[in-house]
This record gives sequence, structure tokens and C-alpha cells, in this order.
Amino acid sequence: VDKILLRALRRQKTSRPPVWFMRQAGRYLPEYRATRAEAGGFLNLCYTPKLAAEVTLQPIRRFGFDAAILFSDILVLPHALGQKVWFETGEGPKLDPIKGGADLAALSPNRLTTALAPVFDTLGLLRGQLPPETTLIGFCGAPWTVATYMLEGGGSKDFHVAKTWAYREPAFFRGLIDLLVNSSADYLTAQIDAGAEVVQVFDSWAGVHSPVAFDEWVKRPLLHLAAELKRRRPHVPIILFPRGAHPHQLEAFARDGSGIVDALGLDTTIDLSWAHKALQPRVAIQGNLDPVLLSVGAPQAKAAANALLQTAADTPGYIFNLGHGILPDAKTEAVSAVVDMIKRYPLHEGE
Amino acid sequence: VDKILLRALRRQKTSRPPVWFMRQAGRYLPEYRATRAEAGGFLNLCYTPKLAAEVTLQPIRRFGFDAAILFSDILVLPHALGQKVWFETGEGPKLDPIKGGADLAALSPNRLTTALAPVFDTLGLLRGQLPPETTLIGFCGAPWTVATYMLEGGGSKDFHVAKTWAYREPAFFRGLIDLLVNSSADYLTAQIDAGAEVVQVFDSWAGVHSPVAFDEWVKRPLLHLAAELKRRRPHVPIILFPRGAHPHQLEAFARDGSGIVDALGLDTTIDLSWAHKALQPRVAIQGNLDPVLLSVGAPQAKAAANALLQTAADTPGYIFNLGHGILPDAKTEAVSAVVDMIKRYPLHEGE
Repeated sequence: VDKILLRALRRQKTSRPPVWFMRQAGRYLPEYRATRAEAGGFLNLCYTPKLAAEVTLQPIRRFGFDAAILFSDILVLPHALGQKVWFETGEGPKLDPIKGGADLAALSPNRLTTALAPVFDTLGLLRGQLPPETTLIGFCGAPWTVATYMLEGGGSKDFHVAKTWAYREPAFFRGLIDLLVNSSADYLTAQIDAGAEVVQVFDSWAGVHSPVAFDEWVKRPLLHLAAELKRRRPHVPIILFPRGAHPHQLEAFARDGSGIVDALGLDTTIDLSWAHKALQPRVAIQGNLDPVLLSVGAPQAKAAANALLQTAADTPGYIFNLGHGILPDAKTEAVSAVVDMIKRYPLHEGE
Repeated sequence: VDKILLRALRRQKTSRPPVWFMRQAGRYLPEYRATRAEAGGFLNLCYTPKLAAEVTLQPIRRFGFDAAILFSDILVLPHALGQKVWFETGEGPKLDPIKGGADLAALSPNRLTTALAPVFDTLGLLRGQLPPETTLIGFCGAPWTVATYMLEGGGSKDFHVAKTWAYREPAFFRGLIDLLVNSSADYLTAQIDAGAEVVQVFDSWAGVHSPVAFDEWVKRPLLHLAAELKRRRPHVPIILFPRGAHPHQLEAFARDGSGIVDALGLDTTIDLSWAHKALQPRVAIQGNLDPVLLSVGAPQAKAAANALLQTAADTPGYIFNLGHGILPDAKTEAVSAVVDMIKRYPLHEGE
């Protein structure tokens, strides 16, 4: 089968845009909540291949998305490197923060593939269970975004601690970033070898930097990671999602990532008609419905989705997605309505 | 005296750029913490003219900033409209959220100027006490940003509640935004009549919208507010700070706000060399040192400040500021070092 997502990532013509949603396996699904309760803890869910594969498949069964994204978390990488990571209900992730060179040196990149064996087993199970037309996406967090959690000890409002390290101890900070580039390349390569057909790198906190710091801590590591992966596994498409990057920064990714970056994920703030003109001639673009609309209702979500389709869907290289992860109170009927509408594209008059 | 900030806002030549810092009166100053403790609560501090004037003056005395910004909070406006607002130590602001049309109708724009009399008294005291060369800035929050607090009941991570109102009940939401445009115009007019020589409108959460929603809930209300103020008090410069707006959205403010918007505040993510070329020919620009640098140390802060000066300071219409408010752990010696450097601009070789 020539899968529709793979065709779109190569910017080949498709009858309609492919569709998948970031965080499509999640708390808005009752079946997810049941499996998570069974797992008894978020990290258990990530590390139990049978359960992780089950929650990955749930949104495929229910909605028929064109791609399944591995169910996991970006923080399994620091966890595998030996950092203490835990999740407290309702509070987000917690980590024992890295406090300097000694903590950095104590991380063990060598144990990565052993420690993450359950993730690769999950991908293997999924390859056996996914419908033949569905693409399997692997992923990791971007070096900058993962570094913020490792240094802050959890989520952050202003990234004060991580930025302070970057400004005050740039050699140390660059050491951490480079370690993450290399570990992420190893991790994604192993995901590909275990069955991932596409990889996406999530830089959720890319949008908090001065222009100089963006180039140094977002752009350089992402392009370095993408180039290394492309060297190792040339046929696997790479999607970068630098959330919060400005339009001219996205243009720089399309230009300087030529032949390396296959697609750019666009957050909700990006004007799709601009991206259609400025980016789509060079890379596939993916996005960018405001996820809040799926919590509001089917009519509002469909109207906004239709505007996106009218803008970019008739040119090869457009993948329908959200501008950020789906929210826990998304309405399943709104998700169905949007996915069904995209699958019926091109729409006929009166629809 | 022809004050340096007023000259820069008119894009007239000055010997060096004027300098002030957002949240320059704040917790990083021991004298602020002492006065705040004396006030016994954040809102008490805002509503006690003698103490609010005192904390406004503290950073002028210590650092010699070219402007003093009224010490207050953007949430005194909903408070004055009759919404319950309180501050819990270490938790940020809390409000009894607006839950629909009845709550909206219960707000009382008529009591605004009476309820905010202490703010106007503070401005009056400041006019009597400020050095003659120092400009007095009044401010308010932008309609969208204030609306998020009124609807969410406090700060938010994803502005889920406010956005849901905007998408699901646009007429109600527009009613709230329009009420805030009108109340903010009244409030800023009264601040001007009490002594404010410049006003700044803070849209701290402008950067979370789809392009369509940005134009509707950020751009339209800000330009409407600015136009109304300009009509009423034509000689008072207006600074808009739509934090998180994309470069082309800032360009739209400069273009569509011609004759209305005197200056644009730039957050840390904006490339000052771009703004110098694209915005400074039309409006004054203000920004945009990463405030984290003031927590890191004087050498790093000075190096980054110098790069900004080299970019924009030789063209009329540049005001040195931070890209966001100063942080509670900013080092006073770093603040001094940066302010002193700007006051000695143009720098001589070897400095």
C-alpha cells in the first residue's frame, strides 16, 4: 500500500489530505482512561508494551486516523539516561533536576536502548496490529524542550532556570544539548528499526528565546538531529514541530533544512495561507486547528477545519492536524465530525 | 524640560536612548519588599496612594530610570467593575469568574472612576515628587488579557476557558471585550487627567490565538482603545505591548495604527534588527532584553544590551526596555550596570 501520510510527506498528490491529531491517544477517550487506570500509573502505561500499544490503537479504531503515533512521553529519554522522573496525578511531571557537570557526567547514554526496550516492543506490537493503510509515527522531545525539564525539575512558566544555565554556563549547557542530540538520534534510529515509519520531534517550548538563543538552542540542535537521522535512515521522513517559532524562523528551517526536514508542524498562531505560500513549496506542512475547538463543538470545529482545507489541501504536501495536543475535555463527536469531513474532501457544494 | 522619553516617542533625535524596565518596581528590590510588608497585602499596596507612590519612586531613586510607571495591577479594573479579586501569596491572582450574561450585566462601569480614586491620587502624588526629567507612565491591561483573568478566574496555561467563551458565545465575548475597551478608555483618560504623560497597554497573552482570533480579540480592541484615547487626549503618546504577536502582526499594528499608535513594545523573541527596519520608520520601538539576563549577571546583561544598542539606538524612536517584566531574583548590580551603560551611550572604544 502507498500510504497517504507517506505520500503527503513526499509532497506527492493525494485525493485528500491525511489526518492525525497530536495527543490523539489521551484522556478525552473513556477507553484510554480505563486502560490508564489498569496500568496504575503513567510511566507504567508507557513501559507496558501491551497497554501502550492498546492506547495507541484506540483512536485508530474509533476515528480511523491515517497515522498512529506511539504512545509514550518525551521524558522517557532522560529517565532512560538515569535521571529520576515521576508523575504526580494532576501535577505534571517531576524530575530530580540536573545541578551541574557531575550530574551531567552521571547520565548513561549507553543504557538507552536497553532501558527503552519496552518502547521498541510497543512499536513491534503496533506493526503487527495496525491496519495496512495506517502509518506508524515515532517521536521524541527536542533537545531544548527536554533540557528544560531536566534542569527545571518539571514544567516551567518562564524557563528561568534553564535559560540561566544557558546564559551563565554555555559550555555546560551545550554539553547537555549535544548529549540530547546524540541520544535522541540513537533513540529515534532504534524506533525506526523497531517499526516507526515517520518520526516527529516536538519542541514544545521553542518560542521563548531571543533570536540569537533560538538559533543556538532550537535551530542548530534540531537540524543537527535531523541531519544525523537522515544520514542513518535516509528513507524515513522527519517532521519538526518547533512550537512558537516565528514565521521567518519556520522559513529558515525550510531553507536550511532542505533535503533533511520533510515537514514542519505549525502551531495555532501560524497563518496557514502564509505557510502555504512560503513553506509548502519546500516542505510538507502539518497543522493547525486550535485544539480548543474540539472542546467547543462539532459545528465550530468543522467551520474552522474547512477554512484550513480550503487554504492548503489542494496542493501536495498538506497534513491535517491540530496546532497543539488535543485537550482532555475534547468532545469525541467533534473529533469524529472533523475526521469524517476531511475523509470526504474534496467537499461538494452544500456540505 | 523636553523629556527624553517623550522625544523618543515622537521619534525625535535624542543623545542616547531613554531607558525604563517593565515591573521595575518589584520584589527584586529590598525596599519594595519592606513597603509591601508594611502595606499588608498586594491590593492594599495598590490602593494606598502614599505607599504606591513610594514603590513607584524607589527604582527612580536607585537607578535613575527615565520613566516611572505607576505601581498598580491590571486587575484593579475588573475589581473596580465589581468583580471579586484577591491575591494569595505565592499563587497569583484569583477572581470569582464571570459565568455568563448575568454576571456581565452586573458589572458597573459607572463606579469605575470612584472606585479607582486611589490610583488617580497616586498619580497626583507622583507628579509632585518625580524629578522634572522623569516621565510618568500610566497603564492598563488589554481587553483580551484582562478578559482571560475575568473568565478563567486567575492565570491560565492554555486559556481554555476564555477561548471556549470566544468560540462558543462570540456575542457574549464581544460584549465583554467592548465593555473592557470602553472602561479602559475611561480609566486611561482619568489617569492622564491625574498626571500620566504616556500610557502603555499590556496584552501579555496576545500570542495564543489563531490568526483570525488575533485580529478579532487582540488587534481590533487594541486599535479601538488607542483610537478612542487619541481622540480624547491627542497629545498623549500610546505604547502597545502585544506580547507574543508575530512580526507581521506587529507590522499590521504599525501600518493600521498609523497616527494612533506611537510605540510598540517588543518581547524577547523579536529580532530587533528586523524591527529596526520594518517598524522603526513608522513607530517608536521599545525593548527587548531578556529579563533572565538581569538574574544571570552584569557582564552577560551588558553584552546583550550592547548588541541591542548597536542595532537600534542611533535611529530616533528607540526606547531601551526588557522583553518582559523584571524577575524577582534580578540582581540590582546588573540593573545598575545596564542603566549606567545606556546613560553613557554612545560608548567610546574599549568600553
